[in-house]
Amino acid sequence: MNWTKTPCPTRDSRFKESALARQAQLTKPAGSLGTLEDIAVRLANIQQRNKPSANNISITVFAGDHGVAAEGVSAFPQEVTAQMVMNFLQGGAAISVMAKQLNANFEVVNTGILTPLPEQDGLIIQCAGAGTANMVKEAAMNHGQLETALQSGRDSIKRAVNNDTQVFIGGEMGIGNTTSATVLYCALLGLDPAEITGAGTGLDEKGIAHKTNIIQKILTKHKDCGDDTHEWLRCAGGFEIVALTGAYIYAAQSGIAILVDGFISSVAALCAIRINPSITANLFFSHVSAEQGHRTILENIGQKPLLDLGMHLGEGSGAAVAASLLQSACTLHNDMATFAEAAVATREASRD
Amino acid sequence: MNWTKTPCPTRDSRFKESALARQAQLTKPAGSLGTLEDIAVRLANIQQRNKPSANNISITVFAGDHGVAAEGVSAFPQEVTAQMVMNFLQGGAAISVMAKQLNANFEVVNTGILTPLPEQDGLIIQCAGAGTANMVKEAAMNHGQLETALQSGRDSIKRAVNNDTQVFIGGEMGIGNTTSATVLYCALLGLDPAEITGAGTGLDEKGIAHKTNIIQKILTKHKDCGDDTHEWLRCAGGFEIVALTGAYIYAAQSGIAILVDGFISSVAALCAIRINPSITANLFFSHVSAEQGHRTILENIGQKPLLDLGMHLGEGSGAAVAASLLQSACTLHNDMATFAEAAVATREASRD
Repeated sequence: MNWTKTPCPTRDSRFKESALARQAQLTKPAGSLGTLEDIAVRLANIQQRNKPSANNISITVFAGDHGVAAEGVSAFPQEVTAQMVMNFLQGGAAISVMAKQLNANFEVVNTGILTPLPEQDGLIIQCAGAGTANMVKEAAMNHGQLETALQSGRDSIKRAVNNDTQVFIGGEMGIGNTTSATVLYCALLGLDPAEITGAGTGLDEKGIAHKTNIIQKILTKHKDCGDDTHEWLRCAGGFEIVALTGAYIYAAQSGIAILVDGFISSVAALCAIRINPSITANLFFSHVSAEQGHRTILENIGQKPLLDLGMHLGEGSGAAVAASLLQSACTLHNDMATFAEAAVATREASRD
Repeated sequence: MNWTKTPCPTRDSRFKESALARQAQLTKPAGSLGTLEDIAVRLANIQQRNKPSANNISITVFAGDHGVAAEGVSAFPQEVTAQMVMNFLQGGAAISVMAKQLNANFEVVNTGILTPLPEQDGLIIQCAGAGTANMVKEAAMNHGQLETALQSGRDSIKRAVNNDTQVFIGGEMGIGNTTSATVLYCALLGLDPAEITGAGTGLDEKGIAHKTNIIQKILTKHKDCGDDTHEWLRCAGGFEIVALTGAYIYAAQSGIAILVDGFISSVAALCAIRINPSITANLFFSHVSAEQGHRTILENIGQKPLLDLGMHLGEGSGAAVAASLLQSACTLHNDMATFAEAAVATREASRD
């Protein structure tokens, strides 16, 4: 796991400086493209290019089952994890539809689903186990499983690098994984489960109260993890969350921009930042989920999301919807004319 | 101008009902696509189709000059209106770049620019005058000019209808037009100029104070307009704002969805709603501008914008950036599998 702590390569600052200078010369009032200007400048810096691009996108959905589902913390039955993976591969899920619209590379990694799945195109099998253990009773995974799950994320980025990926989107599927994510948020940010435990796929008030109680039990059971992020991931993570964490770290180390999705993906991003702070510059937080607590969490980690559309689906879907904003930012940055090129008077000229 | 008050045709409610039913069957937790679900359902209703679409987009930028620019209310000189129109047509402006990215029909209408412009492809000439009169001293336009400007908006939609337009984006260019828009907001919504007068293309604090003072003078000068929206448009509008108002009304009457841009476009939308409330169902407010007051204004007229990216460029650029959200909403609605098609267990099945 030593690779997870390797800092990202040092960047040449001239691409950022040159992008900032260009933004000031484009035919628009200074700053009038708002966040789109920041996106273009950040991408130029991440990609170390004068013409940043978000056209070549890779999407990996990591799927795994959760032992804690036995505690009745989800509105959907556990077999839905495997059924949704089949739906991803057959093109019927939200993330599959968006991947096609974006003309993105798309794959699903089985990090440890309970139900056996047939081998098929687009499905990578790298199981760390047949679902995690029930974290109410024991650690969700052992050290070897943690290592395998991190590695499955790293391997997905190796494929993305081979595909010349400019932007990476990670998605997740795993019935029970909002419970795992909420435990990790509370443990790493010191938040109260009562404040950030939400409905997930659709629990009612009674269900949420039960889930909150389970989360509190898990936090107490594993409190000896202290401030060790790897240990929290091992004791309370899911295979897909660990894989996402590994993918984010290795994507940043490889100079790839990352569009983080919603509630579950953000916890993997938080874990990745805690393990390796140098990756932060590569992260774009795509949207604030309607899942209880996500807004508080993003504020807590100092991130402003691009979209606020009340989505709470996961799978990477919010990130996929936000990808067009990165594309617009790049196109505007690269293709707009400067004041000089267009012979438009600048604000300064008007004062002569 | 009687056509402006003709109500939109009555809609068959079965398209909306069928879209709502379909959203409930798609393989996702109910409501988990948030605003994207609302967009798809609204578009199905507006377009009276089972498969709504936002692929065929027409963008018209209306440009005109403002007599009130003589009062020193803008950071940029007045000749920039004509220079930016040339930039639109040569492909270097933000809206031109976005139009190309969206593969949209794109045209510029000269509604009354001071500087003579050469005839050229993509430029429609339908001038109501050589700029408006200085509204500090007199009405910005006479009745005939108001009629011509409204008609130029209507005519642009006739061209859009011929192009099978599914979504219309109106843009505007006119040095001085945030002054005109702010007067109209204050007059129609009873807002205080001190609260909503902003920097426009980049005034400093002193410039904003001067602009606020001018706006107050204009409001006093034309207070007899009372609650007559047409009269306010005539006395304090710009040709491009009036044209946008006409375009929005006729687009809605023609069953076309409308993506409203920012501060200036929203005032045209407000005028259009006041003249003909039946058009409201066709309007999507694309973004909240960083221009002072726009957030307050949108709350005031009960609209929640799709994006909040700190943009304040105008030209239709914010609407063009938001267009991809409508496209994602349609693709997800049309192409996702239902629970039955994908053989995924529903929440209800889990309770059996």
